[in-house]
Amino acid sequence: MNASKNPIEALIRRMARMPGLGPRSARRAVLHLLHHRDQQMLPLAEEMQMVARTMRPCSQCGNLDMGALCAICQDTSRDATRLCIVETVADLWVLERAGVFGGRYQILGGLLSAIDGITPESLRVDALVARVRNGGFVEVILALSATVDGQATAHYIADRLDGMPCSITRLAHGVPVGGALDYLDDGTLAQAMKARQKL
Amino acid sequence: MNASKNPIEALIRRMARMPGLGPRSARRAVLHLLHHRDQQMLPLAEEMQMVARTMRPCSQCGNLDMGALCAICQDTSRDATRLCIVETVADLWVLERAGVFGGRYQILGGLLSAIDGITPESLRVDALVARVRNGGFVEVILALSATVDGQATAHYIADRLDGMPCSITRLAHGVPVGGALDYLDDGTLAQAMKARQKL
Repeated sequence: MNASKNPIEALIRRMARMPGLGPRSARRAVLHLLHHRDQQMLPLAEEMQMVARTMRPCSQCGNLDMGALCAICQDTSRDATRLCIVETVADLWVLERAGVFGGRYQILGGLLSAIDGITPESLRVDALVARVRNGGFVEVILALSATVDGQATAHYIADRLDGMPCSITRLAHGVPVGGALDYLDDGTLAQAMKARQKL
Repeated sequence: MNASKNPIEALIRRMARMPGLGPRSARRAVLHLLHHRDQQMLPLAEEMQMVARTMRPCSQCGNLDMGALCAICQDTSRDATRLCIVETVADLWVLERAGVFGGRYQILGGLLSAIDGITPESLRVDALVARVRNGGFVEVILALSATVDGQATAHYIADRLDGMPCSITRLAHGVPVGGALDYLDDGTLAQAMKARQKL
């Protein structure tokens, strides 16, 4: 088998570029697909093309959906007075799957980072500030990662929104549900102790 | 977002069925692809369709390739007097990548297993015996896994080939190159000691 000219090898190399797959698991996946051509491989390829051609970022919040406005932005049954700011579409999906928020979203598309050269301009923070100013929100929730970049970005946005007639909140820090205390880092423990609540 | 009706969710569910990917990594992979639609997602879908439509098992050895006979079976520069019996196409690829064998192959497509109901008939051992009988091979190498099923299958095939004018060999057992002795199981150590060689 002249591996370099073989289209299977080309497919494996392309699959191996996806996050979470290496050359070995891409090989296994391709062999699995080849054993289920009509039930899996061809439908997968077709769905991939369909999604690639129809999905686009929502013009308002950045969520991926068909049409100019995403289903969340169009859904009039959702609370239009609360805005949740997340870093990525994946984070929006996590919150939607958990079903813990019924308002609107704004996707930043990244976090401020001096090292990676990500500035407020590249995150389009001005558009976000304008949306909050004109949106009639009573609360803006900064649902960003509890990392250095995430918290720096949250503080920067909170500063930019200062003085507007809405409350600005962030997700609580604390012990993860199901988490064992002796595996927790000191920072989380300190936050959990500081924010302790009456039983 | 009504997740169940969303085509992205359908694609993620399908991706998650591939070995090595779960729902979480499939989600990451789909978002990665959506960020690289023209360079990755559409070419991947097209290559997948092309491979699904053109690849088929070689009529002689079972290897996947275009055309009725695979490149290995067609390659007259390979040693036509040695036949290597492997379980899967993946095993054939492993041996080809390593470049350790220059002869022909026969893919079994499985291993004998009373528990899984895999019989000599389902592995088409009769066709294999006929190929060896008429093929003019001087050596048949049983390159099967060193598991109970692999060794049982190797012994069964060796019995069926008994009396034919070719030698029947199997891969050596021993210490893996780079392997530390104190991580090895007793069975491997016993085999390595028994087959020890002069330095």
